[in-house]
Amino acid sequence: MKILVTGFDPFGTDKINPAIEAVKQLPAQIAGADIVKLEIPTVFDRCATVVLNAIEREHPDYVLNVGQAGGRAAITPERVAINFDDGRIADNDGFQPINRTIQSDGATAYFTQLPIKAMARAIRKVGVPSTVSTTAGTYVCNHIMYQVQYMRDKHFSALKAGFMHIPFLPEQVVSRPNVPSLSLADDVRGITAAIEAMVAYDGKPDIESVEGTIA
Amino acid sequence: MKILVTGFDPFGTDKINPAIEAVKQLPAQIAGADIVKLEIPTVFDRCATVVLNAIEREHPDYVLNVGQAGGRAAITPERVAINFDDGRIADNDGFQPINRTIQSDGATAYFTQLPIKAMARAIRKVGVPSTVSTTAGTYVCNHIMYQVQYMRDKHFSALKAGFMHIPFLPEQVVSRPNVPSLSLADDVRGITAAIEAMVAYDGKPDIESVEGTIA
Amino acid sequence: MKILVTGFDPFGTDKINPAIEAVKQLPAQIAGADIVKLEIPTVFDRCATVVLNAIEREHPDYVLNVGQAGGRAAITPERVAINFDDGRIADNDGFQPINRTIQSDGATAYFTQLPIKAMARAIRKVGVPSTVSTTAGTYVCNHIMYQVQYMRDKHFSALKAGFMHIPFLPEQVVSRPNVPSLSLADDVRGITAAIEAMVAYDGKPDIESVEGTIA
Amino acid sequence: MKILVTGFDPFGTDKINPAIEAVKQLPAQIAGADIVKLEIPTVFDRCATVVLNAIEREHPDYVLNVGQAGGRAAITPERVAINFDDGRIADNDGFQPINRTIQSDGATAYFTQLPIKAMARAIRKVGVPSTVSTTAGTYVCNHIMYQVQYMRDKHFSALKAGFMHIPFLPEQVVSRPNVPSLSLADDVRGITAAIEAMVAYDGKPDIESVEGTIA
Repeated sequence: MKILVTGFDPFGTDKINPAIEAVKQLPAQIAGADIVKLEIPTVFDRCATVVLNAIEREHPDYVLNVGQAGGRAAITPERVAINFDDGRIADNDGFQPINRTIQSDGATAYFTQLPIKAMARAIRKVGVPSTVSTTAGTYVCNHIMYQVQYMRDKHFSALKAGFMHIPFLPEQVVSRPNVPSLSLADDVRGITAAIEAMVAYDGKPDIESVEGTIA
Repeated sequence: MKILVTGFDPFGTDKINPAIEAVKQLPAQIAGADIVKLEIPTVFDRCATVVLNAIEREHPDYVLNVGQAGGRAAITPERVAINFDDGRIADNDGFQPINRTIQSDGATAYFTQLPIKAMARAIRKVGVPSTVSTTAGTYVCNHIMYQVQYMRDKHFSALKAGFMHIPFLPEQVVSRPNVPSLSLADDVRGITAAIEAMVAYDGKPDIESVEGTIA
Repeated sequence: MKILVTGFDPFGTDKINPAIEAVKQLPAQIAGADIVKLEIPTVFDRCATVVLNAIEREHPDYVLNVGQAGGRAAITPERVAINFDDGRIADNDGFQPINRTIQSDGATAYFTQLPIKAMARAIRKVGVPSTVSTTAGTYVCNHIMYQVQYMRDKHFSALKAGFMHIPFLPEQVVSRPNVPSLSLADDVRGITAAIEAMVAYDGKPDIESVEGTIA
Repeated sequence: MKILVTGFDPFGTDKINPAIEAVKQLPAQIAGADIVKLEIPTVFDRCATVVLNAIEREHPDYVLNVGQAGGRAAITPERVAINFDDGRIADNDGFQPINRTIQSDGATAYFTQLPIKAMARAIRKVGVPSTVSTTAGTYVCNHIMYQVQYMRDKHFSALKAGFMHIPFLPEQVVSRPNVPSLSLADDVRGITAAIEAMVAYDGKPDIESVEGTIA
């Protein structure tokens, strides 16, 4: 089994992005699966091409995109990507889409094929906080999650894909009082545990744990 | 113009639900539109029928469902409903769906037809906090938002519909330290302002304000 | 019985201060006590003089100073004032003390004489969130609480005094997403309930409810 | 120079306390100072005796007590301890004081002798979040900070002492969604940096950085 794991480069006012830093530190193999690592740009209109090229080159069974969710306290596997770009800030090419449909012939949204409840449970089992999320936002993180699902829908029906958000690093919150963080070591342990769950649940349905939120 | 506005009854450990309390206090007319008020049960498998009956009886131009989002600090118009039920607690009939598809022939998700950015801005203009949300959760709130969109998709193509979350009332947080709340009076003012924006933007696209979140 | 109730004027980037707005709306009598209202400047080196003048003119039995605590979700009667000024921003005269002792011959700290647990309980009983606080910060709020206690210590031994923080108003958080607020009407109801408790517990010890925090 | 560093044992529903775990991992020497480590019980009426015995045995120049502040996102050196016990839960001996004066002949409060702003800055410089705090609460943490200051006031006038709170560990928040945490490795790095600042500022005044909070 081969798993393509991507991480974004830094954006906004941050000089570092925990996503690519954590991805870089993953081992070459997890639970018998080969891990292919890829840095992708925080750019709406280029990140998908970089992933597409890697899919065509590597033929992975899974794609796991990892991104930063500043302000969250836990690692959050995402359930769904929506067909909507809406940037609060410009991306690294200076582009800030507002109210934009990503793919005019794409679905309104795509659900992940990953066993996200099993992944969240596996992350917690190694002592790292994790909950399932139902929004990846409307910035480049949701964009890449949507675009990979769109590729799958149109071209790579055997592919399984999903997205995981990780918090700020401690060093990113020294100037952001009261904002939670998670260490790079815990990111790496958490992502590793999540990938182990992906491998363990390959071909099986997700677990039926209670993870819902009230709202 | 006629607008059907619904509010849920209390659920969980709460004796009151700000949603139906606020809806009850709305005026009979807002910006020239007739307001039809409806209390609906916090029950996955009955709430949609109650709304459907009201749609067939009243033939509204708009449906606005209102629900409680405990823990949020602002009124949050919702962008999207997803085809997924996942209860953290049982509903008022004692039913707790886990990992359940709502409609096997429905879309993965539906976007609202409401001008939610204009609504959020209108709410803020009357001094009440509001931001656009991209998740209505996976409980009965998302369920009814999804179900009304599904009805629209299958039967009422002229209908416009959407959902708005409101915070706990102050009296609900006296035993929940550090949890934000909003008064019933502000809920009523906020919902009224939102409906005024719905009327003002009828037939027009939403505004292009920056409302996105980073994640 | 006579109670002097003060509220600060606006400071920082805010055009309004809920403290003075709420104080203005208090009735002239609460539980038989006469309420004397006073606006005081958000200025380290002038606010105490304004209160001192009012004490000498009015001879109140109690002084209750009210101030804004942006970011808190509840009304918080304060237990203690410390002999320390440390401004995060300048006051309304442009003065920003750093690491400054307020009174070289004053105590390190003074406890309030108010029945703050009974007050918090009374506020909650009218449906408004309230918890006891053990820090009034190091800005002008702590300063005035300390200065009134110092006056009491040196000159007005029969006086009873204390401080209460209230959250931002909803209109103050429209540009501060995710920050809690409380309406002016709830501030007024909460402060009124607190003053009723002050009158009811006059000459009696505070209640022994569990209000402590873990830390 | 000799520094006595203490950490509490686990309490409440937690099986682990990051305070003692972090203290155990400190090196034997930091910036030339000898580090004496001591585990103390989370018990109001015994913890001070354990520290007193160690002070009499070790004759330290400094005492630094470390404790857990569940819910905080940063390491927080404390400015002040107050003469007041008020337990939200019972301690490890089953004792829960309410509204209790710690020492009838003690000061209302004692300020720390530690350079807490320099410590917070030093912690941030190694990439770990830190802010100065003005409340250590009313549980065993404030108690031991107060008691050590009281000992200093009555018997050990040359001693310098203070307290530092650290957040939950990641493993402690896997069942506490949305609560921030900090890794044990970051606790150790942060405490080490703080002790280095204590040594560097020995005999000098604290820095005059802006650390105040508004309230």
